[in-house]
Amino acid sequence: MTERRRDPLSGEWRTFASHRQDRTFLPAADACPLCPGSDTEVPERAAGDIVVFDNRFPSFSANPPSPSVDATGLYEVEPAVGAAEVVVYSDRHDATITDLGPDGIERLVHVWADRYAVLGARDEVQYVFIFENRGEAVGVTLHHPHGQIYAYPEIPPMVRRDLDSARRHHDVHGTCVVCDVVAAERAAGARVVARNRSFLAFVPFAARFPYELHITAHRHAASLLDLSDLERRHLAELLDVVVRGYDALFGFPLPYVMSMRQSPTDDGEWQDVSHLHVQLTPLHRTADKLKFLAGSELHAGAYVTDAAPEATAADLRRAVAEAASTT
Amino acid sequence: MTERRRDPLSGEWRTFASHRQDRTFLPAADACPLCPGSDTEVPERAAGDIVVFDNRFPSFSANPPSPSVDATGLYEVEPAVGAAEVVVYSDRHDATITDLGPDGIERLVHVWADRYAVLGARDEVQYVFIFENRGEAVGVTLHHPHGQIYAYPEIPPMVRRDLDSARRHHDVHGTCVVCDVVAAERAAGARVVARNRSFLAFVPFAARFPYELHITAHRHAASLLDLSDLERRHLAELLDVVVRGYDALFGFPLPYVMSMRQSPTDDGEWQDVSHLHVQLTPLHRTADKLKFLAGSELHAGAYVTDAAPEATAADLRRAVAEAASTT
Repeated sequence: MTERRRDPLSGEWRTFASHRQDRTFLPAADACPLCPGSDTEVPERAAGDIVVFDNRFPSFSANPPSPSVDATGLYEVEPAVGAAEVVVYSDRHDATITDLGPDGIERLVHVWADRYAVLGARDEVQYVFIFENRGEAVGVTLHHPHGQIYAYPEIPPMVRRDLDSARRHHDVHGTCVVCDVVAAERAAGARVVARNRSFLAFVPFAARFPYELHITAHRHAASLLDLSDLERRHLAELLDVVVRGYDALFGFPLPYVMSMRQSPTDDGEWQDVSHLHVQLTPLHRTADKLKFLAGSELHAGAYVTDAAPEATAADLRRAVAEAASTT
Repeated sequence: MTERRRDPLSGEWRTFASHRQDRTFLPAADACPLCPGSDTEVPERAAGDIVVFDNRFPSFSANPPSPSVDATGLYEVEPAVGAAEVVVYSDRHDATITDLGPDGIERLVHVWADRYAVLGARDEVQYVFIFENRGEAVGVTLHHPHGQIYAYPEIPPMVRRDLDSARRHHDVHGTCVVCDVVAAERAAGARVVARNRSFLAFVPFAARFPYELHITAHRHAASLLDLSDLERRHLAELLDVVVRGYDALFGFPLPYVMSMRQSPTDDGEWQDVSHLHVQLTPLHRTADKLKFLAGSELHAGAYVTDAAPEATAADLRRAVAEAASTT
């Protein structure tokens, strides 16, 4: 059973993929399906290559099965059309993204741009969502370093919310709100963690998670496709700096969710309010405590955060400096 | 530093309470601040009473401090006005809500109704949110059985989303969408887990979590205040049945978030589309695996669920029957 159902209370579409209950769960290193070798999911490749392939347990696919239930006026159902891809970062089982180095991450940025273009060109795809879940604390089921790409048949709810909000801002002020935010953060400085010529890394003014970071293009670029090769290099370099800072923060590879905000791919109407940025949300609030989402966040959508963004930005600046001094 | 900040990207308000980093964290049983005795947070009370008091580490309070930063046109800030209360269910440290029995849960329902009325009458409170986080898997920091109440100065984002959606449904169909849903679930039956004369417990058609349940009033009631004493008794009885079913499902007390949807308290404009129901979302997808929220849910708001609601409803019916047969 794989299908999408519309929740009548919220109006949101949700995806069901019951075969995912049986997906591979934290296998031993010698049984890793993302490692090179026999009985693997990974196509043949040159050593060190980044490879992309369809998820063996997909939430979305090009030819999904028919829904298991009939739609009614109240309950809408549709096939889970789209794509679910796996992006394996390295053939080394125990690597993390920073082991790729800036050169390897730059190759990854080019792969992301390519998949954004290819998946976005499909008629049935409205939004390409590139992300990485890192660490057991965020629920990864395979340790081998990899990210994922979902190609959704609609603009997903949080992206839609932010685009609508950005549209209202544009109507009032005539500007892209993310352009205004990145300029304000450069000017204020208190929440800035790292920067280079093309990107700024900062803790958002109203962050949902204590050590949340956004890596935002200084100039308005709607997607990776709008970046020059030099700008892609700069994104790779700042990603490398930021994740090495995360890993220095508490002295272990910090679990996080990383994703990329880019323009919807079906038409041009969002180009002026879509501004490329990477979002990173670690779950830790201290070295040994997690920020759990519970009643207020999960059932009311009201985030309560235990740390001041200016304080966590200072922690992260120190961690980035420490990581830089040890390499 | 305790304050509310508006996120310029989403338009949502978020709350910061940095003193909560130092809150009591999983103390030993003999140091529990919710137990009767010395050095306790709990006011004096008769044995067995349910007690309510202000959270010692509040996210919201009647007289919050001034914000730590100045507002700008882009960045809005306000004091975290409202209330954060703790509802201790029992003087027994190791009890759970079902140890109260239907009579004790009935007293709890009356306490909830009373706090909803008292907090909702405050000028600065727009929404009263009654909830329980149960189990370390959802991040509880105190094991002693208790729930919480947040009184927000606004209608929180997810509740606002659902009210707007319900308003659109009402404009088109002239009906309350929750009334329509509870009627559809009674008619279909496939997702119903338990019922009595006043309430229906069912897995939602597009549940976010595999074992999610809603306990919904058959008739349109906007809040606990609209219920008769007999209906409050029926709510208590069905809550007792459902949680005992949860605990029988995998043979251990199932961690969950529970909350109550009721009408906003500041005016009457939402009465016709606010329909009282309890939401319960356990995190487990199997006995030993959790449903983690990760990239798709946390950064795109797109829920992907690994189980068919009709299948989990069947599991829960069996668990409810098993729990009933052993008492």
